[in-house]
Amino acid sequence: MTTQIEAARAGRLTPAMRAAAEAEHVEPDVVRREVACGHAVLPLNPAHADCGPTVVGSAFRTKINANLGRSTAGSSIPQEMEKLRTAIAAGADFVMDLSVGPGLAELRVEMLKASGVPLGTVPIYEAFDRVEGNVTRLSEDILLDVIEQHARQGVDFMTLHAGLRARHVGLALRRTMGIVSRGGAILADWMRHEDRENPLFERWDDVLAICRRHDVTVSLGDGLRPGCLADASDEAQFAELDTLGELVQRSRESGVQVMVEGPGHIPLDQIPMNMEREQRVCDGAPFYVLGPVVTDVAPGYDHITSCIGATTAAYHGASLLCYVTPAEHLALPTCEDVKTGVIAYRIAAHAADVARGLAGARDWDDRMAQARRDFDWARQFDLAMDGEAARARHEPAGGADGDSDYCSMCGRQFCAVRTSRRLAGDAP
Amino acid sequence: MTTQIEAARAGRLTPAMRAAAEAEHVEPDVVRREVACGHAVLPLNPAHADCGPTVVGSAFRTKINANLGRSTAGSSIPQEMEKLRTAIAAGADFVMDLSVGPGLAELRVEMLKASGVPLGTVPIYEAFDRVEGNVTRLSEDILLDVIEQHARQGVDFMTLHAGLRARHVGLALRRTMGIVSRGGAILADWMRHEDRENPLFERWDDVLAICRRHDVTVSLGDGLRPGCLADASDEAQFAELDTLGELVQRSRESGVQVMVEGPGHIPLDQIPMNMEREQRVCDGAPFYVLGPVVTDVAPGYDHITSCIGATTAAYHGASLLCYVTPAEHLALPTCEDVKTGVIAYRIAAHAADVARGLAGARDWDDRMAQARRDFDWARQFDLAMDGEAARARHEPAGGADGDSDYCSMCGRQFCAVRTSRRLAGDAP
Repeated sequence: MTTQIEAARAGRLTPAMRAAAEAEHVEPDVVRREVACGHAVLPLNPAHADCGPTVVGSAFRTKINANLGRSTAGSSIPQEMEKLRTAIAAGADFVMDLSVGPGLAELRVEMLKASGVPLGTVPIYEAFDRVEGNVTRLSEDILLDVIEQHARQGVDFMTLHAGLRARHVGLALRRTMGIVSRGGAILADWMRHEDRENPLFERWDDVLAICRRHDVTVSLGDGLRPGCLADASDEAQFAELDTLGELVQRSRESGVQVMVEGPGHIPLDQIPMNMEREQRVCDGAPFYVLGPVVTDVAPGYDHITSCIGATTAAYHGASLLCYVTPAEHLALPTCEDVKTGVIAYRIAAHAADVARGLAGARDWDDRMAQARRDFDWARQFDLAMDGEAARARHEPAGGADGDSDYCSMCGRQFCAVRTSRRLAGDAP
Repeated sequence: MTTQIEAARAGRLTPAMRAAAEAEHVEPDVVRREVACGHAVLPLNPAHADCGPTVVGSAFRTKINANLGRSTAGSSIPQEMEKLRTAIAAGADFVMDLSVGPGLAELRVEMLKASGVPLGTVPIYEAFDRVEGNVTRLSEDILLDVIEQHARQGVDFMTLHAGLRARHVGLALRRTMGIVSRGGAILADWMRHEDRENPLFERWDDVLAICRRHDVTVSLGDGLRPGCLADASDEAQFAELDTLGELVQRSRESGVQVMVEGPGHIPLDQIPMNMEREQRVCDGAPFYVLGPVVTDVAPGYDHITSCIGATTAAYHGASLLCYVTPAEHLALPTCEDVKTGVIAYRIAAHAADVARGLAGARDWDDRMAQARRDFDWARQFDLAMDGEAARARHEPAGGADGDSDYCSMCGRQFCAVRTSRRLAGDAP
């Protein structure tokens, strides 16, 4: 078997490339070329049955990911399966199962069966559970065994915090929030306890061999992403990024697809620099960012604080946006939170695609504008990102049929669009 | 009586300047200088009893406005009064009564009594109601009479669409959405019907005389703001802006404070240019923008589509952000919508203040980060922009007292911050 990047380099168009190209309305060779040079990835494990391919890279539509999963303090398999269906129905391009605690394999197998979109995991969580949360019992072999198991089960991409070196830990511990990545914290604890280097870094060639064999896309985790504005763009973050840049090259050389994860919490003015720096240091590898939130002061509204940052991030080069829900910093999200997060991020992704002039992106907006001008409410709801929500809010001012040439916001007499159309000679 | 701008130019510090300076943590003379040169306004009608002064300008904290008011198709005085209280309690710096239809004076008088923050109106709405929606019966005298009445009642600022010239109307009617400003549409209809110039433009000196007498701040309306992305940054919009620039100068010369209203619907990439153009054309007059929404496709979520645009707008120079609620394009907002809109816009304003490095702005975020690091949930809720909402979402994983050194998102064992603090030697 060859991986997508190997096929692309060999000049061969795979069915996944063709399908992804069709979805993007581009020629298949555009997808092939972007995958070949590593500026795009096609996370698709052949063992993941009935999974549709989706290409991630700045030449294409900006994609969004929904994080799901239980914690040791909450949720159940049926609840998480319901969130998975909610996320995909709302339009998530990717999902990740971030469950921690016991019984991970069972949920993952269920999720892979139910998910028609690529699914990612963070293997260190399961390794940590296998040793019952006792970092002193962790070993490289356990970790590699978990990675192999996930790969065999059909996981399409994995977050691997291989760039967090032993020498970076001290830099992060000086911060206000220290380390806020769960995987990063486990690895830092392990390294500190055994006074050693990051085992993922040390065994990177072995990790890559597994990923190549199953065409698992590596998502290089940012174990030192900042957890508050005060920690943003600091030495710890950028030291890890430099290592991620090296790991990108090694992954590509091994025929493994690779993308890079990014922050987190970043003030708006620092976002363009962060995006440009990743592109430079990681040689254009797709950047997969979490938000970033642009202020720390609004828990309960972090889908908003973060989708402000995500829009600017995508406009400046991020290709995959990991959603943040209103529950962030407070609790596990509910199904409703998952839906709200997905919609907020679809807004961010689309607004960025319009702003960067992606071919065809604004057509959707233009069709909506035309439907508004025509007072064609049914078409507006059809076109709306969340038609159900729009329909529920609309007050059919003109009567029970919901069809009228104005709405309750202004009323008929004060409707500017009615007046404007009359003046233009095409009164509705 | 002298207006704030006249006092400022004469080198005199007014009580309003001192109070505004205290709120901004700057020296009073900073406020005086910014008001004197017209880069800031202090909308405060002496007849508006018990109204606190708030300064608007790019040297100061970004402010937000909440639009309220009935339409001919919905709401009542008690409902709108409840929205007013909701908006102010949630943190609106300004409110506008945009009611249309009969009985406007009664609601306005109630609102002025209840509002401790400056209140704005759009006099053309009442003039239009006085002639029962029959534009052929409108006259300059009616319009000036309404303006005078509002000024006497204590209205602090008024939207006046004086920059929409007869020659601009044709430019706007060629657009997808045409004219989407209610005031702009009425004036365009009037001009077209009588084949004449904008009466507000023609009688601008008389309007200014009233505003000067009552120190009403002029908010130059953008009657031709774009109503969809396709119409953004077009000839109609910028032709009107040029006239607004002339009117800014005439207002200042007459001793009248003036700010300028802006769009609306603008793709993210065009926002910086729009902000810079207003600053240049209008000689630094405070820019008061409505959103802008950065995509047309998400009715029901326009508080999000627009606060993305508003954050970038404020970062690039807008000083006052008019909120957009989730009801936009669909219906009049409910009380809950009003609160959601205000919080979304406080997020936008604060995130922009942090990004532009406004002195002291990030202290709030830093205090929140410290409370997070300390697992001090009570302090997090105290500091949160909407503490009630954050508290309601938080699941006190550690027990009924709500106090624990982790939360249900990760659970105790997987809490990165706990691990990180332990490694740093200050375990909680």
